Amino acid sequence: MRLGHRLERDKRVTTHVGLVGRALGARGMLLAAEDKSVEQSINGVTKRWGGDFFVKTGVNGSEAIRNWKHEGGKVCHLTMYGENILDVIDEIRKEAEEKKARIMVVIGAEKVPFEVYDAADWNVAVGNQPHSEIAALALFLDYLQQGNELKAQFEHAALEIVPKRKGKEVLKRQKQ
Amino acid sequence: MRLGHRLERDKRVTTHVGLVGRALGARGMLLAAEDKSVEQSINGVTKRWGGDFFVKTGVNGSEAIRNWKHEGGKVCHLTMYGENILDVIDEIRKEAEEKKARIMVVIGAEKVPFEVYDAADWNVAVGNQPHSEIAALALFLDYLQQGNELKAQFEHAALEIVPKRKGKEVLKRQKQ
Repeated sequence: MRLGHRLERDKRVTTHVGLVGRALGARGMLLAAEDKSVEQSINGVTKRWGGDFFVKTGVNGSEAIRNWKHEGGKVCHLTMYGENILDVIDEIRKEAEEKKARIMVVIGAEKVPFEVYDAADWNVAVGNQPHSEIAALALFLDYLQQGNELKAQFEHAALEIVPKRKGKEVLKRQKQ
Repeated sequence: MRLGHRLERDKRVTTHVGLVGRALGARGMLLAAEDKSVEQSINGVTKRWGGDFFVKTGVNGSEAIRNWKHEGGKVCHLTMYGENILDVIDEIRKEAEEKKARIMVVIGAEKVPFEVYDAADWNVAVGNQPHSEIAALALFLDYLQQGNELKAQFEHAALEIVPKRKGKEVLKRQKQ
């Protein structure tokens, strides 16, 4: 879930958040704002590159977190003020793998309401330095899945890259 | 090195690139464009949060790559068309650690000239899916340093976070 998205100003950063979520194994993105252009960009990528990543805009953030927890889900808020990811990732992975917990990753823009820190099961810092919520999400998803997401295949892809040392090679497929 | 930066449009994304570089252990950022506002934002963070990350703007990309290689440096271009990071990171880390190679990481915006693919010692894909150069840089730096960068201390920091499960705690220091 992406909180604090400001129209225009955050359009590209929020699009990157969604694309990183999709590329690195998240199921979908909830956006606590109404912005159809972000939704369209991400859905366009999913259409060409495959998978079934969803985008839902206009979500009420507090309500979504409350409902998620009520249904037994866990909430992980990424913030530079939190505990270092290296210290908590094993605990989070255990919840996800052994207890099959569903995890909502919450990412803010500038100021995140204090209630989010309180509601979160974990406040996780991907390094305790200011940098980028896009980078934080990428590293979190990678640590959670231990790199397995980087070789994932996407279903019903119209386009697929053939990894190459030099140059570009893209397979184009007829959609079934 | 950040290539293809477009004024205004890429301001925030390029600032994220610089902040990720700084937070995750790069020495500095070369920007192949003139944009003082990006430089100022990143330098402001370095001033408050420490370390000695440099930003150099108005760099001629092709020339900088040529000189770097001429001086014995290696060039790693991040692109979704490249070889999967999981397949090449050990080779790159070996060059950096055993042979003490200096590595320039090149990151483009939309279109990267073909000469960059050719000049690069490695074209590395952080997953062969479209996502974000910010995320790609973060994961590359993390894989290269195997997570050690996430606990790095920054020298002469005026601000330092005390990691916390809930809430925020920031130490303020007099600069020496």
